[in-house]
Amino acid sequence: MRQIDLKNFKIRTDLIAEAVTIQERKEVEPGIFVSEFLLDETNAKKVFKKPGNYTTIEFEDVSDTDNYSKVKKILKIYLQKFLKGKKTLLVGLGNQKSTPDILGPKTVEEIVVTSYLEEFGPLEEGFSSTAIFKPGVTGETGLETSSVLKNIIASFQPEQVIVIDALASKSLERVCKTIQIADSGIEPGSGVGNKRTEISFETVGVPVLAIGIPTVVDAVSVVADTIGYLMKQYSFQKKFLHTKKSRLVRASQINYLKEDVEVEKEDKERVLGMLGSLEEEEIKALFSEVLTPIGYNLMVTPKEIDFTIQKLAHLLASTLNELLHPKLGETKE
Amino acid sequence: MRQIDLKNFKIRTDLIAEAVTIQERKEVEPGIFVSEFLLDETNAKKVFKKPGNYTTIEFEDVSDTDNYSKVKKILKIYLQKFLKGKKTLLVGLGNQKSTPDILGPKTVEEIVVTSYLEEFGPLEEGFSSTAIFKPGVTGETGLETSSVLKNIIASFQPEQVIVIDALASKSLERVCKTIQIADSGIEPGSGVGNKRTEISFETVGVPVLAIGIPTVVDAVSVVADTIGYLMKQYSFQKKFLHTKKSRLVRASQINYLKEDVEVEKEDKERVLGMLGSLEEEEIKALFSEVLTPIGYNLMVTPKEIDFTIQKLAHLLASTLNELLHPKLGETKE
Amino acid sequence: MRQIDLKNFKIRTDLIAEAVTIQERKEVEPGIFVSEFLLDETNAKKVFKKPGNYTTIEFEDVSDTDNYSKVKKILKIYLQKFLKGKKTLLVGLGNQKSTPDILGPKTVEEIVVTSYLEEFGPLEEGFSSTAIFKPGVTGETGLETSSVLKNIIASFQPEQVIVIDALASKSLERVCKTIQIADSGIEPGSGVGNKRTEISFETVGVPVLAIGIPTVVDAVSVVADTIGYLMKQYSFQKKFLHTKKSRLVRASQINYLKEDVEVEKEDKERVLGMLGSLEEEEIKALFSEVLTPIGYNLMVTPKEIDFTIQKLAHLLASTLNELLHPKLGETKE
Amino acid sequence: MRQIDLKNFKIRTDLIAEAVTIQERKEVEPGIFVSEFLLDETNAKKVFKKPGNYTTIEFEDVSDTDNYSKVKKILKIYLQKFLKGKKTLLVGLGNQKSTPDILGPKTVEEIVVTSYLEEFGPLEEGFSSTAIFKPGVTGETGLETSSVLKNIIASFQPEQVIVIDALASKSLERVCKTIQIADSGIEPGSGVGNKRTEISFETVGVPVLAIGIPTVVDAVSVVADTIGYLMKQYSFQKKFLHTKKSRLVRASQINYLKEDVEVEKEDKERVLGMLGSLEEEEIKALFSEVLTPIGYNLMVTPKEIDFTIQKLAHLLASTLNELLHPKLGETKE
Repeated sequence: MRQIDLKNFKIRTDLIAEAVTIQERKEVEPGIFVSEFLLDETNAKKVFKKPGNYTTIEFEDVSDTDNYSKVKKILKIYLQKFLKGKKTLLVGLGNQKSTPDILGPKTVEEIVVTSYLEEFGPLEEGFSSTAIFKPGVTGETGLETSSVLKNIIASFQPEQVIVIDALASKSLERVCKTIQIADSGIEPGSGVGNKRTEISFETVGVPVLAIGIPTVVDAVSVVADTIGYLMKQYSFQKKFLHTKKSRLVRASQINYLKEDVEVEKEDKERVLGMLGSLEEEEIKALFSEVLTPIGYNLMVTPKEIDFTIQKLAHLLASTLNELLHPKLGETKE
Repeated sequence: MRQIDLKNFKIRTDLIAEAVTIQERKEVEPGIFVSEFLLDETNAKKVFKKPGNYTTIEFEDVSDTDNYSKVKKILKIYLQKFLKGKKTLLVGLGNQKSTPDILGPKTVEEIVVTSYLEEFGPLEEGFSSTAIFKPGVTGETGLETSSVLKNIIASFQPEQVIVIDALASKSLERVCKTIQIADSGIEPGSGVGNKRTEISFETVGVPVLAIGIPTVVDAVSVVADTIGYLMKQYSFQKKFLHTKKSRLVRASQINYLKEDVEVEKEDKERVLGMLGSLEEEEIKALFSEVLTPIGYNLMVTPKEIDFTIQKLAHLLASTLNELLHPKLGETKE
Repeated sequence: MRQIDLKNFKIRTDLIAEAVTIQERKEVEPGIFVSEFLLDETNAKKVFKKPGNYTTIEFEDVSDTDNYSKVKKILKIYLQKFLKGKKTLLVGLGNQKSTPDILGPKTVEEIVVTSYLEEFGPLEEGFSSTAIFKPGVTGETGLETSSVLKNIIASFQPEQVIVIDALASKSLERVCKTIQIADSGIEPGSGVGNKRTEISFETVGVPVLAIGIPTVVDAVSVVADTIGYLMKQYSFQKKFLHTKKSRLVRASQINYLKEDVEVEKEDKERVLGMLGSLEEEEIKALFSEVLTPIGYNLMVTPKEIDFTIQKLAHLLASTLNELLHPKLGETKE
Repeated sequence: MRQIDLKNFKIRTDLIAEAVTIQERKEVEPGIFVSEFLLDETNAKKVFKKPGNYTTIEFEDVSDTDNYSKVKKILKIYLQKFLKGKKTLLVGLGNQKSTPDILGPKTVEEIVVTSYLEEFGPLEEGFSSTAIFKPGVTGETGLETSSVLKNIIASFQPEQVIVIDALASKSLERVCKTIQIADSGIEPGSGVGNKRTEISFETVGVPVLAIGIPTVVDAVSVVADTIGYLMKQYSFQKKFLHTKKSRLVRASQINYLKEDVEVEKEDKERVLGMLGSLEEEEIKALFSEVLTPIGYNLMVTPKEIDFTIQKLAHLLASTLNELLHPKLGETKE
């Protein structure tokens, strides 16, 4: 088999939890995991991310009302720690005409906007000054998002900027099931290390908080994940068939991802041949080489994404509204 | 009857054709009238408008396909005269969530955006550099529209700015049936003479072209117009009843607005009492005093406005696309 | 002045409160008025309405959160009395592409739909069987709404039908400020007395409840109302100027509609001439004759209608959800 | 490796071209392929499809204007053959709130509706009678789509029914790049052979034409396709490296799908191990078993689907408009 060149290969992920190995991951509620992580300069360079504090909240489906409420409670606690200012610009990044991208614009549309009321006197206690902005994407507007944003920030002079964006994940398991909060700033539609397009404390002079949820995953990841699941299921079934439980339940009814199974190297090579001898990153690089020249390295989203994004935007917006305007939280609805 | 104080009274109109008496109004096609007008400094002050060149195109319903094509041909000719630049920022003013306000945003959404392609080399001949921006309104975003716009212009550095906006008219007859083009700049959501919020050649250093179509009229105008029509119809019928035609056609079937009738002063006073002794402006001021304290000085729009605005936005956008990107005009669809 | 023929003239109103004089109108909460009315066969014929029970709830602006909650409480109490069935078809009448018409479609879109769950077993206690239908309008679909509806009802076999529709009012004062509930059925897009198109208990065999809110008013009513207000204000000011209060407050700051003033006949004729000698209905018929031949007998809506309809649809839908699925009301949000 | 039970396994496809092997596939324009196929009773049973005439048009991306025009020309020719009636009901199947599903509703919204005009007399020559219907999906409305449709058909009594629907494909290569036309009728949201829910000539008494475009593909297919591509690329590169061309072009720049390469059995087993010894259908069944118990057998769509569906809906609607109303085709725009 040909050599796989990992140098030029990078599956896009916007999640720190996928870029580094995070040790401490607490289960703060049943099924809800939180990790708080400080990415220092040295490690940041290694993973092509920006240094800063990253909080990752992982959960199951928010279409369940009970679970939705729990996630909201946790989000409120951890998001609170990042807020530091009485005048906030909330930015909804992304293309409003692309379903998986619409998280940011939808969220800020639900924010209770107050800044224009200050013209008539100071705001009521329990409310802070808020404004929103939806810059669109360059392909839609022709304007460079980063430059537009810097100008809006310079003009509005907020004490903090909160950016909401749909992210890409490397893994099916995280899509619509992870919220990442970071104080490292953002670089709209681009790589890392470009001071010209970066929106961060260093470049705009006020804290820039980024809240993101992965809504897409690329086809390469779907394929590589599935290959991995195949081996896990294989190993699980091999082990399971010798247990008593197997007489009662069919193996196919068990979610083997939640079982603790080790995949053995020789099994991998037997089942998958040369493919099985590769590391996960090599497999992804290989499939990337397979799909790219035929134009199929597409990003994929679950079919029910429209509904889920609606829910998640409402989750973010209502939490932000309650934190930025505590008085709102007291009245119901 | 009480004194009517005209000092404090001003029915809002954004149409120069309603603010001054324009002499030359040419019928360039059957049913399509164009006036070109230079408002000088002196007259500008009198009517609280900004000095500049104003072109007004008046037409009938564009839902008729034939008429639509004719209006588009005329618009293209007269709009052409105002264009002066190879790099254009097109701004769609107005609240995207308010139907009569949506003309600007809808129009720029249909513009073929090219500026971001310049990154990959000069544009193909027959295309010019375009970007679009939809600032929203202050009550929605919390940001001061004027300040945001100035920052975007400073950042994009266009050679010309084209602003599309829904206007207010004083008269039912003009709603959705007039296009006004002016090079005098704009003042988003405000009066006249405020250098701080003005977007014009003087304040941003490049030509600022404003294209507007009236989509609303205030209730005061509807009422005053109707009173006026009542008198016109009365006078028409009085005259008509002594003609031979009256034996063949019922008076109620004739559009008396298209007939040439003089309303006599004594008729006015007999039919309308003291109300009939007032001038048109006094009548409007009076009804404004009647409707304001009870909160009914509302702006009104025709019921079918959604459909008509769609048509008009398409008219503006396709004309602008053909003028800014002449190569586009050559391929059909 | 010419003869005004009232025979052929009828300002469209869908509100029973505008068609008959209702005696009992209770203020059930400050600023919220309710009348319950049984229209019998005899009176029904007189006013061209269908006989049945009519409940009218009148209120002020629901954009105020406090007031919204109060109106919802009252609506829930009075709507409850009309409900009689465990299997409900909710119909949202109206053109989804016309802003003032969108109330019905928007409302049913927010209804919690359950009927399809019955396939998997009986519904949980506290939930009833619901389905929704948005027939569109004939000009949009080409289908006769009435016939389509009858077929859907025959197929779904509900125990009750609830139709939500935007109505026309004769008066500015009621637009978006009245909810009418009736058990008399409906006739989509048409007059009265046409058994072929009627959807009612008689024609479909199950109770048909109609919930409507006026969202439009015709230009004739706006004009006639304003003429009426002019006289009220005139009479109020004449009286007020001789009071002590007039030294403290300017007359123009007082909402004269809330004052108790009698308009004298001679004042009317002096101020309005021959116009002042006409009855209200004659004035409307006259203005209808004035506006019709020139194509301006348009329906008008307040400018902020988009936002208000959103609120009202949410009000209706959340109340209906709580009544049809009481279990829902117990969990918050 | 465990036994793979193909009995219970069926990757969903709505495309006849994926269910049977079609011999005649003509390239009617460069890059546009058409096959016309009669599925007889015997074969229909084998592939769980309904018997009838199937026409499949395959093409590349329609975002290219030139290609769009060519595809439209071909579609018009082949669609014409299926039309047989002067009174048509056009049905847009699918959930309007799910992006990949919106093809049907979007298409019928663009149809020129005429049937309601017949009330005023016969239609102008060159126009036929059309009505549209968007039934929604059961989960959204609570109504059984099939039953609703039958009732609407019985009520409107068309001479033909045309149903537009988004389909599922087994293959990435066909998503948004195939139009299938069939006269076999449809079964909304369900399997095959259920006379109760079937909408076809047999059950409704008029021809039922189905036009579909695949907009989704399931994750299992994406994975299996990629495994297949891996082998094709491997085989291609092995062969290519010994050619002269390989010194000029890098293998990774060549779309190997367009090259003629045979995958050898021994290569498959060497590269993929036991996985390589399976047939394509077995691989799909295997991955279905892997993804189903963990809830990841999701349907996937390309990220740019919103834009592409807009284009395709416009393609279908404008072609249908021109065929149903030939007079329309003569006027431009």
